[in-house]
Amino acid sequence: MGISALTDSERAQALAELGKWTLRDDSKAISRSFQFADFNEAFGFMTRVALLADKMDHHPEWSNVYNRVDITLTTHDADGLSERDVTMAKAINAY
Amino acid sequence: MGISALTDSERAQALAELGKWTLRDDSKAISRSFQFADFNEAFGFMTRVALLADKMDHHPEWSNVYNRVDITLTTHDADGLSERDVTMAKAINAY
Repeated sequence: MGISALTDSERAQALAELGKWTLRDDSKAISRSFQFADFNEAFGFMTRVALLADKMDHHPEWSNVYNRVDITLTTHDADGLSERDVTMAKAINAY
Repeated sequence: MGISALTDSERAQALAELGKWTLRDDSKAISRSFQFADFNEAFGFMTRVALLADKMDHHPEWSNVYNRVDITLTTHDADGLSERDVTMAKAINAY
């Protein structure tokens, strides 16, 4: 039993709740860009996300350039967006 | 007085010393990809690099997907590769 992708209506509702996350063209991933005062703050944020990712055993695809962090969430096992991505995005929104 | 880019011969020598780093087509940046056992190890490595970056006030452009970390080093102030990138790459090699 793997994890399954959200249905179209579940995905639409999740996106509405999440706010600033954008859906990728293929509807299989969501992304958000974060900007901080400097690298130190950006990496502090990344560390919080990393601890969450390790605990959830669900990992972002992300990049960092100085004060900016770009995060993409998708669930490879579901070949799409799953409840895990939504849970993680909500947790990240709360940081 | 800003920092200046390496000359062609300095760059060639640095690349030979660094080993696994590859020069970008425009010769203004170097990159290396790292693979680890899992996310926890990959982020542990990133944390060491982040502490170095913060201390050197010189920051990588980097991305992470699960156990993989891709690092690009360039010096925007020099519009190219500088001694700072070489110093950082050598330190990263030693981790």
